[in-house]
Amino acid sequence: MNPVPPAAELILIGAGPGDPDLLTVKAWRTLQKADFVLYDRLVHPAVLDLAPAGCERICVGKLPNGPSTSQDTIHRLIREKAEKGGVIVRLKGGDPFIFGRGFEEAMVAHSLGLRVTYIPGITSMQTAGLAEIPLTHRSVSEGIWILTGTRKDGSLSADLRLAIRSKSTVVIYMGMKKLAEIADRYKQEGKGETPAAIIRNGSLTHQKLALGTAGSLPAMAAAQGLNNPAIIVIGEVVEISKEAGAGSHRHTASGPKTLAPILTPGFGIGQELGKTDVG
Amino acid sequence: MNPVPPAAELILIGAGPGDPDLLTVKAWRTLQKADFVLYDRLVHPAVLDLAPAGCERICVGKLPNGPSTSQDTIHRLIREKAEKGGVIVRLKGGDPFIFGRGFEEAMVAHSLGLRVTYIPGITSMQTAGLAEIPLTHRSVSEGIWILTGTRKDGSLSADLRLAIRSKSTVVIYMGMKKLAEIADRYKQEGKGETPAAIIRNGSLTHQKLALGTAGSLPAMAAAQGLNNPAIIVIGEVVEISKEAGAGSHRHTASGPKTLAPILTPGFGIGQELGKTDVG
Repeated sequence: MNPVPPAAELILIGAGPGDPDLLTVKAWRTLQKADFVLYDRLVHPAVLDLAPAGCERICVGKLPNGPSTSQDTIHRLIREKAEKGGVIVRLKGGDPFIFGRGFEEAMVAHSLGLRVTYIPGITSMQTAGLAEIPLTHRSVSEGIWILTGTRKDGSLSADLRLAIRSKSTVVIYMGMKKLAEIADRYKQEGKGETPAAIIRNGSLTHQKLALGTAGSLPAMAAAQGLNNPAIIVIGEVVEISKEAGAGSHRHTASGPKTLAPILTPGFGIGQELGKTDVG
Repeated sequence: MNPVPPAAELILIGAGPGDPDLLTVKAWRTLQKADFVLYDRLVHPAVLDLAPAGCERICVGKLPNGPSTSQDTIHRLIREKAEKGGVIVRLKGGDPFIFGRGFEEAMVAHSLGLRVTYIPGITSMQTAGLAEIPLTHRSVSEGIWILTGTRKDGSLSADLRLAIRSKSTVVIYMGMKKLAEIADRYKQEGKGETPAAIIRNGSLTHQKLALGTAGSLPAMAAAQGLNNPAIIVIGEVVEISKEAGAGSHRHTASGPKTLAPILTPGFGIGQELGKTDVG
């Protein structure tokens, strides 16, 4: 390969769960000096618009059930752009180091002699809070166990059985194709009645929420036509706001409810970054 | 109590792990319209400076081994400020709904009739990435199990035993007083040699990193005088960068190393927000 110019660098940026305003200030600033942006399909257009006019934007997204960009192709693109020099931003949904394969890209860039920087992003599970589901709550949840539904070999993590036996809130990323299997495991452990939620497009205006139990996850998704991108949250925290006497009110996809929610739906969602004064 | 003016609202904001540039854009904007800010001790002064000149700033931090503000006092302050009307920002380190007791405050505010909004923050464990420790990595870690060292009754979570048996990266928040107990449990399960890291003040210029094994956690902390605020990360991901042939190079507190790291130390860390143009 050609030598990499000394000024070439890779900056791995977490774009957060969807709402462009959930980008960090550091990411916002950094995008404005990008020469190349390699971005995931789910990154909001308003975030891409932060890059300068001359910046080359390349979508390397993986469509569910559609064409996908292989990890090898992404690595090749990093190499090609590095040879041209300049700032390569790798913009990933959520956080690059939480199921994002970002560190693989960091290692490739490092082996090419690039300077590599990481800027974390709000990770998808934090959108549970926007649906009145705190990930922990004193005396209710002792921790959070985050698993992925898509392991390298396609199987569900064996860790799920341990997680079911714990007192931790269980969060499953990319698990929408494993709902029947997840529900079965909970039922096998006698925990099918554990409260559960599915959150799709969390933090965006078209966010959808389904509430039910671990055993009814497949029915919940089917009733509302929910698929990826979504997270699954299982644990007593899902019902905290109901226990607080403000329960049957949340804006689920099945329609508006009558009681006022504890939390006001996030303001400013989906507004365009470029048009707002922040300085 | 006095009636709460209709315009009164509580906005729960995650201030992130320390570096003010890791605040979200939404939090940045929101702080600029605060009438009252109730803030944790660890919130960066540059973040507080974003609030308007007339804003009342009240520290409700809990000092380790020092005076602390009780949760009841925080709830009382929310009520008092609500009666005056205006925007009350509750500014918490990390994320308000991850071991932050933020939802308790949301429920109190809701019971007072306040509009309540949540803005997530980068949570402390994500600073592991700044120390070249990805929280997940294909074929190495199947998930992340986040636990707290300070349960309501002061005991270590029983979930730790399940976590030790898993293939997940284990992250322990507020666990620095439990290091001996954590090390013992790992050794009891025959996992004392699992790679482990302690990260103190992650994302700040005075960040410190100690590397070792689960069984040696107390010695690691003692050697470098590390205490709270810190996170503990245990799992094979701690050694990923070493396996990638770039290992024994990280900037630990014990002094600079000779090889170049995979990741460049975060730029702009600790710079003052107010002096940088972001718009």
